[in-house]
Amino acid sequence: MRYRELTIEGRNAVLEAFRSGKTIDKLFVQDGCKDGPVMSIVREGKKQGTIISFVARERLNQMSETGRHQGVIAQAAAYEYALVEDILQAAKDKGEAPFVFLLDGIEDPHNLGAIIRTANLAGAHGVIIPKHRAVGLTAAAARTSAGAVHYTPVAKVTNLGAAIEDLKKQGMWFVCADMGGELMYRLNLTGPIGLVIGNEGSGVSRLIREKCDMQAAIPMKGELDSLNASVAAGVLAYEVVRQRLGV
Amino acid sequence: MRYRELTIEGRNAVLEAFRSGKTIDKLFVQDGCKDGPVMSIVREGKKQGTIISFVARERLNQMSETGRHQGVIAQAAAYEYALVEDILQAAKDKGEAPFVFLLDGIEDPHNLGAIIRTANLAGAHGVIIPKHRAVGLTAAAARTSAGAVHYTPVAKVTNLGAAIEDLKKQGMWFVCADMGGELMYRLNLTGPIGLVIGNEGSGVSRLIREKCDMQAAIPMKGELDSLNASVAAGVLAYEVVRQRLGV
Repeated sequence: MRYRELTIEGRNAVLEAFRSGKTIDKLFVQDGCKDGPVMSIVREGKKQGTIISFVARERLNQMSETGRHQGVIAQAAAYEYALVEDILQAAKDKGEAPFVFLLDGIEDPHNLGAIIRTANLAGAHGVIIPKHRAVGLTAAAARTSAGAVHYTPVAKVTNLGAAIEDLKKQGMWFVCADMGGELMYRLNLTGPIGLVIGNEGSGVSRLIREKCDMQAAIPMKGELDSLNASVAAGVLAYEVVRQRLGV
Repeated sequence: MRYRELTIEGRNAVLEAFRSGKTIDKLFVQDGCKDGPVMSIVREGKKQGTIISFVARERLNQMSETGRHQGVIAQAAAYEYALVEDILQAAKDKGEAPFVFLLDGIEDPHNLGAIIRTANLAGAHGVIIPKHRAVGLTAAAARTSAGAVHYTPVAKVTNLGAAIEDLKKQGMWFVCADMGGELMYRLNLTGPIGLVIGNEGSGVSRLIREKCDMQAAIPMKGELDSLNASVAAGVLAYEVVRQRLGV
């Protein structure tokens, strides 16, 4: 399996990658490095919503494959993204109502990987992630997916809200995890459904939540107020599975 | 919150920590270091089932707080462990049937942390982990638990099988996640229950599985054959929650 990440090193190479429109998943910049070219790269990264980490020189040295990173290393997607249409087609081919995960700003590649793995096992037809302010299909995400990236298509969209509107027109319903919502057991989660999972820290954004037809609350009995994002995705996805099985 | 790990550095200090019976969660040894004292430490670590990582000198330098690690760094539990009795008492105090997680060899601190967080939110009274061949309550686990370690007691036992036998005598039932088992919806998971979650790679060990009263299968629809350990724990725990709620 191809778990290698496309690593781009050095100022010109990284800037060029940004300008060519390549999808950069993550940008590492040497802490305290403030000269012109590096600032241009950081600006470009911010403009595109790339996750930027400022790290010590030693960390960059460790990550570097060429030994000539000049204070910047970018990581690009290691896998090909699918199109949203591919996901709907996969559902159609199986003769099933579409079941799609939409991730509203997952930042941790391990969470992304675990969620793609869950999507595969819960019988979802694909995962949709936003282009900006979210982690992409990095090597770490692919590794944590335990191979699910080879089976479950992942599509990247510029605007998650617009994608939801589009899919609604095609008859899909959307439910998001929200502790202020209706207890998940009381909702009807059968039929063509999009499951929206929010960011690790801030949950589902207001704009996206307002586009959802249903807000599903997972029962919470303890002192904390939210599950880990990939666990929440699993619990909610398996409520969909249970309802679809008619148990 | 106290997220600091107890880091023990240097040959004498680490060997002394082992010999004094301190619970060492993880041992880092400089790769290629094969002299007498280091070999004694590695032997001691193996005897106690500590997870040993052989790493480059640079990694140790990075981890070191004193700058004098001499090729060995040990990490000890940052939190106090509870006793199994404390967990049962917590259930009693709440007037609830005991609901306990037992982790049969979870190795990844992030999984451990996410599972403790799930245990808290699912209303479990505690988590039992084995002393050997498993990750302990490290700073990383505590951090991933999002504070759950402050509320949900974690007990460490020498022998997980013996702990199960003991708890059975006190009226508890045990269920483990096993894809060869009965579909989880068909099992009766109400009443005093211990939920056994297996190792990330190899699942629940044969010995422990045979001690369980029930094997619960999570429905699997995709190409892979298992969920991430913390997701599986979440899905199974929430089936217990659902049944306890009578939904």
